[in-house]
Amino acid sequence: MKKHSVDLNSDMGEGFGPWRFGDGVDQAIMPLISSANIATGFHAGDPNIMADTVALAKRENVRIGAHPGFRDLVGFGRRAINESAEKLVNDIVYQLGALREFARLNGVDVQHIKPHGALYMLAARDETLSRLLVETLQTLDPALPLFCMESSVTFRVAKELGQPVVREFYADRDYDTSGSIVFTRSVQRLDPERVADKILRACTEGRVATVDGGDIDIDFDSICIHSDTPGALQLVEAAHAALTRSGIRIAAPSPRPAD
Amino acid sequence: MKKHSVDLNSDMGEGFGPWRFGDGVDQAIMPLISSANIATGFHAGDPNIMADTVALAKRENVRIGAHPGFRDLVGFGRRAINESAEKLVNDIVYQLGALREFARLNGVDVQHIKPHGALYMLAARDETLSRLLVETLQTLDPALPLFCMESSVTFRVAKELGQPVVREFYADRDYDTSGSIVFTRSVQRLDPERVADKILRACTEGRVATVDGGDIDIDFDSICIHSDTPGALQLVEAAHAALTRSGIRIAAPSPRPAD
Amino acid sequence: MKKHSVDLNSDMGEGFGPWRFGDGVDQAIMPLISSANIATGFHAGDPNIMADTVALAKRENVRIGAHPGFRDLVGFGRRAINESAEKLVNDIVYQLGALREFARLNGVDVQHIKPHGALYMLAARDETLSRLLVETLQTLDPALPLFCMESSVTFRVAKELGQPVVREFYADRDYDTSGSIVFTRSVQRLDPERVADKILRACTEGRVATVDGGDIDIDFDSICIHSDTPGALQLVEAAHAALTRSGIRIAAPSPRPAD
Amino acid sequence: MKKHSVDLNSDMGEGFGPWRFGDGVDQAIMPLISSANIATGFHAGDPNIMADTVALAKRENVRIGAHPGFRDLVGFGRRAINESAEKLVNDIVYQLGALREFARLNGVDVQHIKPHGALYMLAARDETLSRLLVETLQTLDPALPLFCMESSVTFRVAKELGQPVVREFYADRDYDTSGSIVFTRSVQRLDPERVADKILRACTEGRVATVDGGDIDIDFDSICIHSDTPGALQLVEAAHAALTRSGIRIAAPSPRPAD
Repeated sequence: MKKHSVDLNSDMGEGFGPWRFGDGVDQAIMPLISSANIATGFHAGDPNIMADTVALAKRENVRIGAHPGFRDLVGFGRRAINESAEKLVNDIVYQLGALREFARLNGVDVQHIKPHGALYMLAARDETLSRLLVETLQTLDPALPLFCMESSVTFRVAKELGQPVVREFYADRDYDTSGSIVFTRSVQRLDPERVADKILRACTEGRVATVDGGDIDIDFDSICIHSDTPGALQLVEAAHAALTRSGIRIAAPSPRPAD
Repeated sequence: MKKHSVDLNSDMGEGFGPWRFGDGVDQAIMPLISSANIATGFHAGDPNIMADTVALAKRENVRIGAHPGFRDLVGFGRRAINESAEKLVNDIVYQLGALREFARLNGVDVQHIKPHGALYMLAARDETLSRLLVETLQTLDPALPLFCMESSVTFRVAKELGQPVVREFYADRDYDTSGSIVFTRSVQRLDPERVADKILRACTEGRVATVDGGDIDIDFDSICIHSDTPGALQLVEAAHAALTRSGIRIAAPSPRPAD
Repeated sequence: MKKHSVDLNSDMGEGFGPWRFGDGVDQAIMPLISSANIATGFHAGDPNIMADTVALAKRENVRIGAHPGFRDLVGFGRRAINESAEKLVNDIVYQLGALREFARLNGVDVQHIKPHGALYMLAARDETLSRLLVETLQTLDPALPLFCMESSVTFRVAKELGQPVVREFYADRDYDTSGSIVFTRSVQRLDPERVADKILRACTEGRVATVDGGDIDIDFDSICIHSDTPGALQLVEAAHAALTRSGIRIAAPSPRPAD
Repeated sequence: MKKHSVDLNSDMGEGFGPWRFGDGVDQAIMPLISSANIATGFHAGDPNIMADTVALAKRENVRIGAHPGFRDLVGFGRRAINESAEKLVNDIVYQLGALREFARLNGVDVQHIKPHGALYMLAARDETLSRLLVETLQTLDPALPLFCMESSVTFRVAKELGQPVVREFYADRDYDTSGSIVFTRSVQRLDPERVADKILRACTEGRVATVDGGDIDIDFDSICIHSDTPGALQLVEAAHAALTRSGIRIAAPSPRPAD
């Protein structure tokens, strides 16, 4: 039951122009994680930050993924925009390609794709969007793993169509009884030890508490800690330490083939 | 001396959101040209327009190129922005990758790259920018032809470093005695027959008149007609008819290898 | 029952940077209307277009209003964005002020305010948003008329709080049985004579057909024809001609005081 | 010679969407200054930040000014854009109006206007721009003080046309022998005590050192410390302490009438 190895992913490069979240947080977090979701310019990220972040990930031997969001800098991609699946998938294609070119420039591959914020949550429940996204990935890159929750429509459709998936556990978000996370636009500061305990329990028992006071089973391949959560570095450090102490290796995911 | 074949290129997909230049002009121009420079989102173009334009080019059997510009929608990339070569090249890398992904989705290749507007003109005279751009292309795609003027620094640097080039003739712009075009933000309506005559003379005699009243030698591989020039469709139609009448084939360029 | 006078309003200045809807449509429509809703930069419009449009309205003796939208150029403000009322009202305050400064520069007043597209439709059904908007207008300018539908929450709240309103009739949109219009992102070309007939019937009988095949009562102070509807100029011309022929004067509204 | 009173100004509200410079720096700096230049959305600032910043300034009894910049979020308004004076002044009019509306909402006045970054530096040397800006202010608000350097073209033109000015001293920038500051895109961390000494010397002796190793006379009404300079809070605290210790009152400027 206990995992021997797990991926640890975080969103990187989520600044824009002169703005960053915190000072040096990306530089400090990157060595502790195994997968970096790199903002691709629509909700955050610009070409210079992307260039620097891909280079940083390469230096730290961290795998990179595209992290496309709604075109909404001011809302940081956390506001759902009422748009057709076709147009949203075009936005994703654009952003995926942009990251790929920086990867190519650095001689690395794009390992995965993970939609951001409200786009991730929309895909999680919207079959039309998930289906068109997965079909498009099947054309573009049928071996590119798609990060998603096991409880999501995205997961179900990816399995159906044969796109590899990486199932996520959200260490810094609350769960409801459906196994979905409770979406929030702003996150409070969390206690690093409690987050580490939550991660260890999920990794060893396969259980997580819900907002209703109960418990649910959870299975996953990757743990996500958001880098814009206040005190994110401390959370990642605590998670890294707890996993290491428990003998659970932090390593990039081996994508779960469709079964 | 007379050319047997020449490329005819035009900028395509230069709308944004709900806006287009004219109604159906892209659809009408596309069948008449051999290379389409596709706006990649920073000065014009959005993912939906890009998707449609790549599909249109494919249907019409037209080769596509990336047409990256300054990040300046409101100025349509026609206003120089004082920025470092490094950051401008990152902007170009981003935009090139975005187009490549739509090309991949359509099963076609990106045939060339051509910076837009003020960025093209800046590269034409700025050695630092042209050198970093060409060096970056050498890493990304050393066989990707770069559109430029023979009189430009871009041409000289590309030849020096071995990046293939396609030399352009601007049918709808005025030349100065240096062989460079006179940059303008807004172009007047031109007489299609005069433009066609200018093209034929350049293709058969290798000469073009300058704003000073003189004449210069000109050599080139591709003729550019801007699709946002008022009456652009009539210009392209006149050019197409005159070339065809004169037995000059309109065909995508065979890139000129560095010598 | 028959109106002696009615306002005719249209959205003006809905271009951005180099882009316009059609050539010269604003210039042709402006002399035919009595109220111009001027795009204020978030869904369309930029400072240069605003400056030109305010000057054009002044020349044609047309009253101007602020036409604020969602911050969404690529979606032209026609996509609902999931955001708090507080933030949306801040967006409106910003845009209203921007227009006021151009009005001041031209020595004219801002006569009214009318949210655009999806923001107008959201306010029409969202009491929290309508209430906060009206409360804010009560502080900023308690005599500034707010354009809305009589069937909307906006109308009810404005009446309750005492903000003057101008009730609209949508000549180029379909009605449902609730008296609300059927929101659409793209509008087909309409027959000018049918639109003129619809307007005359509404002005003389106070009735309009619904999509369900029935008829409802409708009362209003202003007729709206969208300038981005294909063939908008012909619609406005037909409306202007039909009203004039019928002896109904086209004139800026006298705001309806709260009763 | 020694000043009895001086204004202390800083740029406030220079975040965008989720991004701020530092945590709580604005809240900490605001009580220490007498004039706040509030970013108006083009280089930084959004309607929500503007609303909060105007309210914060009011609470701390600090006078506010509009701080318009180039439309360039990614470059933070520090990159010159090659544009006509007419269009740049339209950008300024738009931004000024936007701030005025938030001021109106809070029952305060806009006390001054100060262009930001590269736009300020461009106006300082470009007579066409400064003249059109001042002429426009003469129409909009002939009593609105314009912040500028005494060495600038802006100052000369404002005096000529009768617009009131507030002359600035830049405590965190280097001077050249012309009395102009050396523009920079990124500023190093400075020693608070040295900055405080520089301020005191300027306030008591009217002298400042130049980058050439010499000294020049300097006269001014307001001291500027940029809030995005690393360690800005410490600089403002040191300046505030030094001025207070020396018996120089920090107070909003009484605009210098044209003489």
